[in-house]
Amino acid sequence: MATVRLLSDAELSAEAAEVFADIRAVRGTDYINNFWRALAHDPVTLRATWERLKVVMAPGALDPLVKEMIYVAVSTANGCSYCIHSHTAAAKAKGMTPEMQGEMLAVIGMAMQTNGLVTGLQVPVDEVFEA
Amino acid sequence: MATVRLLSDAELSAEAAEVFADIRAVRGTDYINNFWRALAHDPVTLRATWERLKVVMAPGALDPLVKEMIYVAVSTANGCSYCIHSHTAAAKAKGMTPEMQGEMLAVIGMAMQTNGLVTGLQVPVDEVFEA
Amino acid sequence: MATVRLLSDAELSAEAAEVFADIRAVRGTDYINNFWRALAHDPVTLRATWERLKVVMAPGALDPLVKEMIYVAVSTANGCSYCIHSHTAAAKAKGMTPEMQGEMLAVIGMAMQTNGLVTGLQVPVDEVFEA
Amino acid sequence: MATVRLLSDAELSAEAAEVFADIRAVRGTDYINNFWRALAHDPVTLRATWERLKVVMAPGALDPLVKEMIYVAVSTANGCSYCIHSHTAAAKAKGMTPEMQGEMLAVIGMAMQTNGLVTGLQVPVDEVFEA
Amino acid sequence: MATVRLLSDAELSAEAAEVFADIRAVRGTDYINNFWRALAHDPVTLRATWERLKVVMAPGALDPLVKEMIYVAVSTANGCSYCIHSHTAAAKAKGMTPEMQGEMLAVIGMAMQTNGLVTGLQVPVDEVFEA
Amino acid sequence: MATVRLLSDAELSAEAAEVFADIRAVRGTDYINNFWRALAHDPVTLRATWERLKVVMAPGALDPLVKEMIYVAVSTANGCSYCIHSHTAAAKAKGMTPEMQGEMLAVIGMAMQTNGLVTGLQVPVDEVFEA
Repeated sequence: MATVRLLSDAELSAEAAEVFADIRAVRGTDYINNFWRALAHDPVTLRATWERLKVVMAPGALDPLVKEMIYVAVSTANGCSYCIHSHTAAAKAKGMTPEMQGEMLAVIGMAMQTNGLVTGLQVPVDEVFEA
Repeated sequence: MATVRLLSDAELSAEAAEVFADIRAVRGTDYINNFWRALAHDPVTLRATWERLKVVMAPGALDPLVKEMIYVAVSTANGCSYCIHSHTAAAKAKGMTPEMQGEMLAVIGMAMQTNGLVTGLQVPVDEVFEA
Repeated sequence: MATVRLLSDAELSAEAAEVFADIRAVRGTDYINNFWRALAHDPVTLRATWERLKVVMAPGALDPLVKEMIYVAVSTANGCSYCIHSHTAAAKAKGMTPEMQGEMLAVIGMAMQTNGLVTGLQVPVDEVFEA
Repeated sequence: MATVRLLSDAELSAEAAEVFADIRAVRGTDYINNFWRALAHDPVTLRATWERLKVVMAPGALDPLVKEMIYVAVSTANGCSYCIHSHTAAAKAKGMTPEMQGEMLAVIGMAMQTNGLVTGLQVPVDEVFEA
Repeated sequence: MATVRLLSDAELSAEAAEVFADIRAVRGTDYINNFWRALAHDPVTLRATWERLKVVMAPGALDPLVKEMIYVAVSTANGCSYCIHSHTAAAKAKGMTPEMQGEMLAVIGMAMQTNGLVTGLQVPVDEVFEA
Repeated sequence: MATVRLLSDAELSAEAAEVFADIRAVRGTDYINNFWRALAHDPVTLRATWERLKVVMAPGALDPLVKEMIYVAVSTANGCSYCIHSHTAAAKAKGMTPEMQGEMLAVIGMAMQTNGLVTGLQVPVDEVFEA
């Protein structure tokens, strides 16, 4: 169930088809996941999102696996089931072991817990933490 | 402003004082940040939180800097100002460079954006993402 | 799956039945959606919610379609799947075109992204923004 | 207090200075708000965010004031104080009257309330709401 | 700093003044807290919020102190600083001891933690939990 | 669908098996719900979570039913479907009547609503609310 239909390849606009072709080339697979098929109704946002994603998730000062785990952490705090599934799968594909997944989840749980305690206590920020 | 007073060392229960001593020993500094001074009203939760934090944030399959960045990511999605400040400071102390901070933030922003798009579109999870 | 059973018309209290009758009259349809059938266990909250909803969503300084899009925006940030579905459907019924839906989603995504960046950076509010 | 220093004009990289020049030209004011001064540490993200913002917030199928109110709605649900202040100010500059602000807030409050009720009840989505 | 000015008694509309009079009578104090002074710009929402609040927070199947703690719990998960402060103060006024506050916070922290773990793991709901 | 497989009893490590035995003994039932079967991949986090849960949810200054309702409140604000189902079931098992559930939900809805209004208005905290 979605708030738009998922578009098949035959239903794409020319611009959306171009983006799909690039996704396939960059990822080395013919499979296009549902997110892009839903987003394809709006080719401008489709292209902007894909182009920015390529830059943001590329190797840099942080390696791509670390980036995927940060992505999962944000998606978990926001409760985005789709994003948790897709980026956990991406992290596994990039080498996340069960031990690493377990530690990532333990940190997420710890952060959630202390977020709740600190917020409920309304603790003022220490001056030593200022930039 | 907080919902409890921050306790000074002189006001601690014996159990809370023991935990503070361990925090000082493990961290190699006399400084105790406000979170622990607020939590010290409840020595059982103080101890449980500190003991678990030591285990969760220790080096393991993930290095401590990666754990701090995951912590910041969750805290940002939850809007916990105190936690963002304290764990950004901790990440910097563990070697996070400005470039790494910039990439961490870019991933957080990207994840937030696609969390919003996916959720607004209510995209169903692809079967290929199942464990 | 729900935390209460959905009530059929035959199971309603007199007060809940009155509210259902008003929903049917106002909306010009016999169909009652699941939210009201779940809420009907508590007729006081059922009535208060429906009465307030009629006022809040009525034409005023803002037109009802704009109100539905604001509703979807909040529900998306909160991850409320039911509310996203029902208010997206309501927005479409009130004239939201695919182009408008695309732009609404793009704004939601943009806002989520900058919410994440600003919060991670902990940017202080400019004085010029004060009321 | 922020997790990075706000950069003055004298401290900008060449790429960040170009973006600031464009912000000034497009907005017709010399004032640059704190968000951009914090983001300027990462010129690539600065440029990408500004370029995308110009597209997303431009007049289209939705008018810019409606877009600002959707922005405020998301930022409120996410608790982003900076974004609420800056986009409420932007909405006022684009013509949001006190009556419109009052109705926007009433819708936000209504949506938050029913998000909570629906989520606590775990109401299943009606088939009639499917796209 | 707020997105509207706080109204003084002299600036109230007749309808808002009536609501303030009822707040003073019901609470037995002349003090009106900032929330109502901000909300007073929109007398219809002011009245609706106050009237509903009186019903919802009154003694019933749950006692008022339990209701205040549930209120704090929601406000903490949503990161609403104002609401945490005001309803923690209200809970203390209704008899919440430091021990009770400590246990409330421990439950909030525990719930936040398992919310994170369950969501990151995407655990399917057990059939035995269905209503 | 989950991001890890649910482990059967035959697949447990020795440490996880010990924890399952304690869950069964404490709860007086052979049934182990899915959360623990998912968490069992990481026996250290499994044990830490279970041991802390026993302490936090035990009778104390607050009775266990009140604690379950606080748990549901947090889980609702966070949109954690699994947690809402499991802790609503636990609350019912501990005596939550339909009337109590209705009042709990009404408070959750009220809190969500005023969280949205206060946050959208950016109301400053009254000094009288300080600890």
